[in-house]
Amino acid sequence: MRIGFIGLGIMGRPMALNLKNAGHTLIVPDRASLTEEIRGAAEVVADAKSVAAKAEVVILMVPDTPDVEGVLFGPGGVAEGLQSGSLVIDMSSISPIATKDFAKRINAKGCDYLDAPVSGGEVGAKQATLTIMVGGPDAAFARAKPLFEAMGKNITHVGAENGAGQTCKVANQIIVALNLQAVSEALVFAARAGADPAKVRQALMGGFASSRILEVHAERMLKGTFNPGFRIRLHQKDLNLALGAAKELNLSLPNTAIAQQMFASCAAHGGADLDHSAMVLAIEGLANFSMRGDKA
Amino acid sequence: MRIGFIGLGIMGRPMALNLKNAGHTLIVPDRASLTEEIRGAAEVVADAKSVAAKAEVVILMVPDTPDVEGVLFGPGGVAEGLQSGSLVIDMSSISPIATKDFAKRINAKGCDYLDAPVSGGEVGAKQATLTIMVGGPDAAFARAKPLFEAMGKNITHVGAENGAGQTCKVANQIIVALNLQAVSEALVFAARAGADPAKVRQALMGGFASSRILEVHAERMLKGTFNPGFRIRLHQKDLNLALGAAKELNLSLPNTAIAQQMFASCAAHGGADLDHSAMVLAIEGLANFSMRGDKA
Repeated sequence: MRIGFIGLGIMGRPMALNLKNAGHTLIVPDRASLTEEIRGAAEVVADAKSVAAKAEVVILMVPDTPDVEGVLFGPGGVAEGLQSGSLVIDMSSISPIATKDFAKRINAKGCDYLDAPVSGGEVGAKQATLTIMVGGPDAAFARAKPLFEAMGKNITHVGAENGAGQTCKVANQIIVALNLQAVSEALVFAARAGADPAKVRQALMGGFASSRILEVHAERMLKGTFNPGFRIRLHQKDLNLALGAAKELNLSLPNTAIAQQMFASCAAHGGADLDHSAMVLAIEGLANFSMRGDKA
Repeated sequence: MRIGFIGLGIMGRPMALNLKNAGHTLIVPDRASLTEEIRGAAEVVADAKSVAAKAEVVILMVPDTPDVEGVLFGPGGVAEGLQSGSLVIDMSSISPIATKDFAKRINAKGCDYLDAPVSGGEVGAKQATLTIMVGGPDAAFARAKPLFEAMGKNITHVGAENGAGQTCKVANQIIVALNLQAVSEALVFAARAGADPAKVRQALMGGFASSRILEVHAERMLKGTFNPGFRIRLHQKDLNLALGAAKELNLSLPNTAIAQQMFASCAAHGGADLDHSAMVLAIEGLANFSMRGDKA
């Protein structure tokens, strides 16, 4: 297939190369930041409009909601070049509510739209093992499926409504943040009460407290190794999406709001680029206590 | 071994019978509530003092901190009858801080003390598959191990300090409550944003959001079947222990405090005896929305 790919950053680059390796033709907009590898693998054209004019499928992988809006509907954007019958797939993690609007405006051009955010990070992007959560019509999903299979592994068609994929991603980020809170409070509590938090973690694995976060991130908390991983600043962005959407939906998410404040506390102390498991520092800070005995 | 068992309720009864079945002698204090099965299986004596006078090991399985204090140190209590060299094992879930004090007072009588709270509920008690979290000296743990093995499966000696077992149990209850919050907010968010929460749950299983709570309790939330299970009123008690101890430790547990308020909201609306997964109703209530489409 002729695939336009816009947003060739840390995630987008390996995703695009996996599509190329699966036998597809890549078309990308010219940017000073394009790597030689991408220039060698893709047809480079002037802008997003030119990408859309030449591609059957246009994939976006950009940072945030305004970036998607700009790439799609800004001057020289995708919407200006789109041919009727094309498919736009937004794999960025953005607002589920804005997504519904973007999809409608793309549909009005006679094109299908899928929202298909991912999780699994840079490693998942490189190894083509991303989890992909997709919202949009059945036929569009069927058309895109071989592309998703070239980039990911656990691919779920969450719903035929646009926004369902983004909603699922936000739900994922809510649970991950709140499970980080859970493990942070429990381990700092245990340490502060005089128990060995490593032994406590061990005792709790396999029971009702078990989670992937207790498995992976509690380990990081205990060792105090907070190199990312997934940066606090990115999780802040995702919880902003959750809280912004919740506000529009007239919904109260008290713990998500607290999680956002915990991340803000980490960021305020210079930790925005630490792994999100560093949320424990906000609780430790409140306790004025290190559970790793390195308080000095 | 000659084992005194005090607290023969829903949990204590099957635990005591498992000890009897493992070949031990049971001694219990007389209560109008003793079942025929227990009367048949045990030597029934006047009170806790008489139990302690006749037993090598005295096990407690009572509701809360004041109950343990009363049984141990009240008039006609265990402390009055204890022989030097005996072992007291408190398997109730109580304050880790009070536990340290109780242990000291029992130690002063020349006796060892273990705190060994359990998780796994009535089913675990009957099937002898309880998770048992133990705090106290190595030698006492070694002495008690065959007894634990007659009642449970996943047995961890969390620390040689008394209170470590109770601390571990509190940490468990913190994580379970906060993971319930996580799944509640994520699923209600997803439903409210127009996605199918069952599909969202499916998509998230296996990823970083996965947890035992997402597996088991999210299912209950989706079906709206809140028969216990583990009652909200009991989880409220456990979070009280967490927040009470945190206060004494000068530690801030913001999300545990919110979880306690969510449970209080459920209880205020008559839900204290629902399964703790009914926490989702507090979020649904805030959203004035049912994610199961039964709003009518």
